[in-house]
Amino acid sequence: MTKYSIGVDYGTLSARALLVDLTDGSEVAESVCEYSHAILSGDFFEDTELENTDAFQHPQDYLDALVITVKELLETSGVSPTDIVGIGFDFTSCTVLPVDEKGTPLCFYDKYKQNPQAYAKLWKHHSAQQEADEITELAEKENVSWLSSYGNKVSSEWLFPKLFEVYHKAPDVYDDTFRYIEAGDWLVWMLTGREIRSSCMAGYKALWNKKTGYPENEFWAKYDKKFSDIIGTKISCNVLPAGTKAGMINSHGKLLTGLEIGTAVAVSVIDAHAALPAAGVTDGGKLMLIIGTSACHIVMSEENKSVKGICGSVEDGIIPGLVAYEAGQSAVGDIFDWFVNNCVPEKYTVEAKEQGKSIFAFLDEKAAELEIGESGIIALDWWNGNRSPYADYSLLGMLYGLTLKTKPEDIYRGILESTAFGTKAIVDLYEENGIEINEVYAAGGISQKNSFLMHMYADVLGKEIQITASTQAGAKGSAIFASVAGGYFKTAQDAAQVISDKCEKVYYPNPEKTEKYETIYKEYRELSEYFTKRKGV
Amino acid sequence: MTKYSIGVDYGTLSARALLVDLTDGSEVAESVCEYSHAILSGDFFEDTELENTDAFQHPQDYLDALVITVKELLETSGVSPTDIVGIGFDFTSCTVLPVDEKGTPLCFYDKYKQNPQAYAKLWKHHSAQQEADEITELAEKENVSWLSSYGNKVSSEWLFPKLFEVYHKAPDVYDDTFRYIEAGDWLVWMLTGREIRSSCMAGYKALWNKKTGYPENEFWAKYDKKFSDIIGTKISCNVLPAGTKAGMINSHGKLLTGLEIGTAVAVSVIDAHAALPAAGVTDGGKLMLIIGTSACHIVMSEENKSVKGICGSVEDGIIPGLVAYEAGQSAVGDIFDWFVNNCVPEKYTVEAKEQGKSIFAFLDEKAAELEIGESGIIALDWWNGNRSPYADYSLLGMLYGLTLKTKPEDIYRGILESTAFGTKAIVDLYEENGIEINEVYAAGGISQKNSFLMHMYADVLGKEIQITASTQAGAKGSAIFASVAGGYFKTAQDAAQVISDKCEKVYYPNPEKTEKYETIYKEYRELSEYFTKRKGV
Repeated sequence: MTKYSIGVDYGTLSARALLVDLTDGSEVAESVCEYSHAILSGDFFEDTELENTDAFQHPQDYLDALVITVKELLETSGVSPTDIVGIGFDFTSCTVLPVDEKGTPLCFYDKYKQNPQAYAKLWKHHSAQQEADEITELAEKENVSWLSSYGNKVSSEWLFPKLFEVYHKAPDVYDDTFRYIEAGDWLVWMLTGREIRSSCMAGYKALWNKKTGYPENEFWAKYDKKFSDIIGTKISCNVLPAGTKAGMINSHGKLLTGLEIGTAVAVSVIDAHAALPAAGVTDGGKLMLIIGTSACHIVMSEENKSVKGICGSVEDGIIPGLVAYEAGQSAVGDIFDWFVNNCVPEKYTVEAKEQGKSIFAFLDEKAAELEIGESGIIALDWWNGNRSPYADYSLLGMLYGLTLKTKPEDIYRGILESTAFGTKAIVDLYEENGIEINEVYAAGGISQKNSFLMHMYADVLGKEIQITASTQAGAKGSAIFASVAGGYFKTAQDAAQVISDKCEKVYYPNPEKTEKYETIYKEYRELSEYFTKRKGV
Repeated sequence: MTKYSIGVDYGTLSARALLVDLTDGSEVAESVCEYSHAILSGDFFEDTELENTDAFQHPQDYLDALVITVKELLETSGVSPTDIVGIGFDFTSCTVLPVDEKGTPLCFYDKYKQNPQAYAKLWKHHSAQQEADEITELAEKENVSWLSSYGNKVSSEWLFPKLFEVYHKAPDVYDDTFRYIEAGDWLVWMLTGREIRSSCMAGYKALWNKKTGYPENEFWAKYDKKFSDIIGTKISCNVLPAGTKAGMINSHGKLLTGLEIGTAVAVSVIDAHAALPAAGVTDGGKLMLIIGTSACHIVMSEENKSVKGICGSVEDGIIPGLVAYEAGQSAVGDIFDWFVNNCVPEKYTVEAKEQGKSIFAFLDEKAAELEIGESGIIALDWWNGNRSPYADYSLLGMLYGLTLKTKPEDIYRGILESTAFGTKAIVDLYEENGIEINEVYAAGGISQKNSFLMHMYADVLGKEIQITASTQAGAKGSAIFASVAGGYFKTAQDAAQVISDKCEKVYYPNPEKTEKYETIYKEYRELSEYFTKRKGV
């Protein structure tokens, strides 16, 4: 009898579910559901004004999306729930919410319906900057060992700052919070009755590591004595490797999904990280580039090394038994968008329109006509600071080599190249620290849409880049984990061999171009060294 | 009886003559004549194709302009030639032509009518780059003393490269050349029968100085033995201070102009330099900024000092007895134009149109709304290299401080500021070398049109800037020199007191703003130091 698994990918504004045939990996059915509240608008709260940096969501939307998409998968496919071995989730992270001891979100209670702090905070909620800065400061003062694993800086996007913001802005909500939990983990709880924290989310977003756990209560007590028992109370220590079996559908889970009681539920995983198994990347030495508005660069290894300048390294972060290293560029597509919105003259936008081309296609064509180095432009891709390898968000973008003959396509190409050089700087960082990179994969919209850029990346890196066919890597990765949790496959590696998306296209480096780029890359590094070390005046 | 003088300003495409009343400096009559050939087009020569870098003119146009404008001045004013004490010229420089022993341009002869090298080469004729580079190379090898007075580089715009190009491309024209002469000096010859070289033009454009003259024939023989007697043959050594009396109108001069035989003719002067007496700047310690597509910064002093990084220092360069120092920024208005042509998005150009504003006015308004330092953008104004203080044309423009929030007006303001900082760097250079600057004057279209920019310059320099009213500084300056040559005034200083244009507007520095700019200027200098010293890879 054919068996199936379900993966549900919870993105920023919608969830996408996928039903996969485990015999051949084919995608049997798909369903998408947008969150009806999207990101909560100012109108939602009658008496409270929201900040620009706020980004709240309604957890009811997550449940609704689960109910609607799984139901639709079953109806359109005609597959019997008895043939579904498991379900798994990937979720944006750190997207966190306060719940009571039954897992009920505090915002479901009347008394907190009008309190934003009782709702889920989306990953890009940035209002806990002060808390983040204070934690960083304390960690520096206390000379803690974990800070260096996070680029020496705690982000306002992470769990502890978001939780402490609840305490500072809504102490009553804080006091009534039994657990502050990732939305992905919360869904698992709702389906299984078991509260399991994902090692992936805890590792990257809650300062957890497999050997020493979270920062100890002793540390948090120094931040505020109110937090002296936070670990083990508000924050669960029940962490399991991402993608392993978290539990089984219980009666409540059956009510929600229509799946059979006893169906396996996988530990949740961060959405970007689910892209790795989806692309068949389940063992060490394979670098996955996920290129979107920003970029992340994930590679796994059997060895646990300290690599300064990356975002985090987490044992069991994606695949049990492997350490997953993550580095990042804090802006990639965002810089291209900035350029197009702010720097393209009317004559170009008009000409692109006349030719029926997008402005990106138009600029790519013009930029492609240039020889490597012809424009003389060298950029530093730090429009949004630098995540890796410098972990310095105060760094700024730079354009050098401007002349009276410089054309918009010269600058555009310089910017594209700078993001490729930024990627190479990260690859070099990994390799210099003994993290092998034997193969390179790319996922994300830009990698599928912009072949000019991907050729450039292959040339700059001097490495082949494999692009996967999937447009829904997250759901596919979650379905892989679900199949392992359900016992159909023994390991994610085995599952990926059958289910993962095949390579759609390979970009091969051109050795002559690689050599030319090598010279410009040296300039890029020289300029990087100067601008990271200069003190300013 | 009221006396008058005439100044004729020979620009790139037209000549403008002015008849000035010497009792009060009033402008009695004015006449403009465009050169009918403008810059010679490719069609003019049947068998020779012109290069992009070529810029030839027809000397007949210069004579025609003289005949037409002086005649019109006399007719419209009704002034009798007997009441005109003198005539003077300022001319673009180095604009040079080959003539025979009577001063007849070789291009007037049938045999050379179709040979471009027999025509006048306009200042911006750039086809003698190879010759310029070879002279620089030889000068470095020979360790000559004069090279440092010219920013360590011979420009392709100057006399010797242009003459040697004649030899290389048209040896017959070279052999038949009795003199290779500045067009301004040639006009004086035509009117007086005397061949006098202007110290201003010889000093800035022909490597001449008052103490040692031109580079010696021994030097030129090393370049090519053909040139072993060039000084004293092709190049006249009869150099007189600019603006002094060169001679008197002879019968041929009377035929051309209608002026009386015996009327004084002044030694010619470079057009930009004529702006100084026109603005009343006839003594030391007064800096004249002439701001256009590029900028020059002229200041006079009684002391003769060696200042590294300026374009030239010439004794008697403008006013007899004073050393005139000239420094420059190789692009100012050109960078603003570059920005407007290449970097302004459609939404801005559309909005400016809707508001009925020029794009410059629109951008100025937006930039003016920014606080000093608000954008975080710092630029290096080296889009066309750096003339002073680094004398390095290989330097390139730079923009630092770009973020995803950077707007076009941020970059625009950063570019404006960089040109102000570039000016301050030159003022500092003068002052550090003991050249006093007590007052600052500005002339040129940008100084009259852009008050936002001039406020910024005053704030950045921390000095008052006086703007003169004249739109024809060149002709006014020449009329001043003509009045001195004619003996009406004893000195240019005396003449300027009566004739010069009065200050139209003063920009006063705001001390608070000056202090804020001081910090950014330090960053500018720090970045300048790095980029001028870095070797690249």
